Amino acid sequence: MLKDIENRPRGSRFQRSEILAALKLNADGLIPAIAQQHDTGEVLMMAWMNREALDETLATGRVCYYSRSRGKLWRKGESSGQVQRLKGLYIDCDGDTLLLRVDQPGPACHTGRSNCFFFRVDGDEAVVTADPLIDPETLYGTAGASSPDPKSAKDPR
Amino acid sequence: MLKDIENRPRGSRFQRSEILAALKLNADGLIPAIAQQHDTGEVLMMAWMNREALDETLATGRVCYYSRSRGKLWRKGESSGQVQRLKGLYIDCDGDTLLLRVDQPGPACHTGRSNCFFFRVDGDEAVVTADPLIDPETLYGTAGASSPDPKSAKDPR
Repeated sequence: MLKDIENRPRGSRFQRSEILAALKLNADGLIPAIAQQHDTGEVLMMAWMNREALDETLATGRVCYYSRSRGKLWRKGESSGQVQRLKGLYIDCDGDTLLLRVDQPGPACHTGRSNCFFFRVDGDEAVVTADPLIDPETLYGTAGASSPDPKSAKDPR
Repeated sequence: MLKDIENRPRGSRFQRSEILAALKLNADGLIPAIAQQHDTGEVLMMAWMNREALDETLATGRVCYYSRSRGKLWRKGESSGQVQRLKGLYIDCDGDTLLLRVDQPGPACHTGRSNCFFFRVDGDEAVVTADPLIDPETLYGTAGASSPDPKSAKDPR
């Protein structure tokens, strides 16, 4: 269906339900969602949503993902306090990726860093590009003593 | 392995091979790669890489993805001429997503638009937010007459 309308001019409008029904979820019922800080353009993280997470995010304006490791909805910030507020939701041409423009005042990453992309390839090396804004122990309580954010509890693979 | 070093300070260096070996590819041997225009912060697209695509991209500086629909390497721009040049490659905390900072002078999207995220949810509707920079027929030749970009030849699911 998205293929049929991809050449429509700017400003063309469609029923939201029709567009959302055309999303291509993977075999697990999930779609990747890129979170970008709305005012700076910083790419914060990538996580996954199922239908329920997407519907909840649109209904509440608070970003909710689906945690693959926990196998349940993950309301971003439920452990860390670092809530993401939705400013705009975009769907790509193929309907298989979401772009979330969000407001994330604090760190998006479970390490306490502003964003999750802090390993940069540099020639034959890789370098850590950022320090935490907040110590992760402050985000989640004493290390190991409290329930971690789903990102830090992720399975080794 | 990334978990063991995630709290290292900014400037910490590691062997590239060691970091790349820690990447978590999915069951198909693929990892999602977000392409972001390096100077404007615009999120252009999301596609997938396998090991070979990643190695080639790092070796040549020209971004190469893996086309899931074609089942082979996809050197971005091979049909459209809209090559992506790598400016920086970042790996996220979990090692399961790549962020490519690229230079993409022309449209990234097979529709001729600057980026692929041109459907925006707006209340109960969705709106097309951009027009093509270049007519897709100019990008790929007369419609249907030439080999399309892998993005436009994608399977319905």
